[in-house]
Amino acid sequence: MAHDIQIITEAELRGIVKLDLTTVDVIEAAFAALARGGVVMPPIMSMELEAMHGEVDAKTAFIPGFDSFALKVSTGFYGNAKLGLPSLNGLMVLFSAKTGRVEAVLLDNGYLTDVRTAAAGAVAARHLAPEVVETAGVIGTGLQARLQAEAAHLVRPFTRVLVHGRDMEKARACAADLARSLGIGAEAVDDPASLVAESQLVITTTPAREPVLKAEWLHPGLHVTAMGSDADYKNEIDPAALSRADSYVCDRVSQCESLGELRTALATGLWTGGTPAELGEVITGQKPGRRSPDAITISDLTGTGVQDTAIATHVRARFPKAGTIIRA
Amino acid sequence: MAHDIQIITEAELRGIVKLDLTTVDVIEAAFAALARGGVVMPPIMSMELEAMHGEVDAKTAFIPGFDSFALKVSTGFYGNAKLGLPSLNGLMVLFSAKTGRVEAVLLDNGYLTDVRTAAAGAVAARHLAPEVVETAGVIGTGLQARLQAEAAHLVRPFTRVLVHGRDMEKARACAADLARSLGIGAEAVDDPASLVAESQLVITTTPAREPVLKAEWLHPGLHVTAMGSDADYKNEIDPAALSRADSYVCDRVSQCESLGELRTALATGLWTGGTPAELGEVITGQKPGRRSPDAITISDLTGTGVQDTAIATHVRARFPKAGTIIRA
Repeated sequence: MAHDIQIITEAELRGIVKLDLTTVDVIEAAFAALARGGVVMPPIMSMELEAMHGEVDAKTAFIPGFDSFALKVSTGFYGNAKLGLPSLNGLMVLFSAKTGRVEAVLLDNGYLTDVRTAAAGAVAARHLAPEVVETAGVIGTGLQARLQAEAAHLVRPFTRVLVHGRDMEKARACAADLARSLGIGAEAVDDPASLVAESQLVITTTPAREPVLKAEWLHPGLHVTAMGSDADYKNEIDPAALSRADSYVCDRVSQCESLGELRTALATGLWTGGTPAELGEVITGQKPGRRSPDAITISDLTGTGVQDTAIATHVRARFPKAGTIIRA
Repeated sequence: MAHDIQIITEAELRGIVKLDLTTVDVIEAAFAALARGGVVMPPIMSMELEAMHGEVDAKTAFIPGFDSFALKVSTGFYGNAKLGLPSLNGLMVLFSAKTGRVEAVLLDNGYLTDVRTAAAGAVAARHLAPEVVETAGVIGTGLQARLQAEAAHLVRPFTRVLVHGRDMEKARACAADLARSLGIGAEAVDDPASLVAESQLVITTTPAREPVLKAEWLHPGLHVTAMGSDADYKNEIDPAALSRADSYVCDRVSQCESLGELRTALATGLWTGGTPAELGEVITGQKPGRRSPDAITISDLTGTGVQDTAIATHVRARFPKAGTIIRA
């Protein structure tokens, strides 16, 4: 019983899905749906391939009211650089939520993951950052450092961005790219403490296993989005910082407990806040977000299956003619 | 950095992959690899969609020495019959084991799963059934009842097959299909006890939640393959039967404990045999299989990611020109 399946390549997806406010709204709606309940989101399936210096993650989520659900596979093979290939790859498969049949295969090589991850940062900034952000700081110098800064700029059009990384050369390259893409002042800075001191919005985008942001650097009127930790051995934020903030908000509590900043804070006994709020609950107003301009807020993003389902469903609904149709 | 991705449809796959001895050998090699160690096979990712009367399973496995690994998604949506669609669907995605990039998308709508599942039954029969099987019995009347009988016939060319199901009409239809496909005598039988008594090889292929095969029916010179249970609420074999058999062999112990016949036997305290053998260990000779013509053997098949990786890798290696190439 053959049916039409839409196959869309990375190049085609880059042409139709951008990191813009439309995409931010799509991801915001996904988090809101998560808070409204009825979402089915199993734990991430992970496979560590030590022999290949690789890892594989699969995520999925069913969202009530959505016509489709995605299953996304991300691969990270860290020997690829030597072959001149990107480390991160993958695809998304979209299934009918009514019949379970494959509707689309998005051969994005990780592009949609990059976009939906950055868009979640914008959603966090929209709901938690101070209304006025003049200076944003980024700790980390990879692709997400660039995309997170661009995403945050969509909702908080700061006029200056600071970049810190262990490798100052990479920090300068990242700052130069952001100066160009955002048309604002951008500087690489040596000292992360001063980066935080000068910023109203800080994004950490590193694979750090030891904190890169100390609790004593927190200051009134600061929002921090920690998006680097997505594994049970990563940690970007000083565990003492979470309870020191006025609001600490998870993308998904169950994931942050095992893969995010909350893991270390719980393990060290430094988290004393009970069950944290989730980003979706802040969006829907079920839980408070920022309570005052001077508040300190932290959001912890581990990456959720609802983001994948939301962006993949959006692609199919908005671009039904894109790509190649294969009858299978 | 676009690369070529092979897209193969169900119709194309049906033309190139058959349930034959080649496929049985491919699946046997997968189980042998599992026993040799170094396989990485995370727990199955499962999503129950009660509202849609549906379920989604994802399986994957990395096998050392294989150029690729598959991630397979199976969907079962039990309202599809009303829409005139098959309940079971899905696809397999093949990734490079060296770079993690997508190499092929096998849009099989579950066909390869059907074949690799049946082939595992043939592997179990090859290594555990008596050398001579004159009569085989099948309890269950669905697609796997037919495929399992056909697969077992490849390795034990029995001359008569008996079929039992709760619905005698379906049992007669299944027997008629098998008479045609195997060119042997086939009968539907009302009484499962007499089916077992007359058979040297019995295959259970039901979604039963209560045993369909009783321990007291076991007789010398019998092999039973229980392939129906793949969920923590299913149970086909009387839990007392497992310890009564001379050999009880799992496809994967960790899966049979939670999803197979071993689950109920452990829960009822009726399993007293310690850690069971795995099928791969019997294939490689690490553990004994059938010890004598009169022995009673049971194999418990829950379905493993190595089977998916093996069949998908086989397709790509043997049929590199099949399907459509998409540059993505």
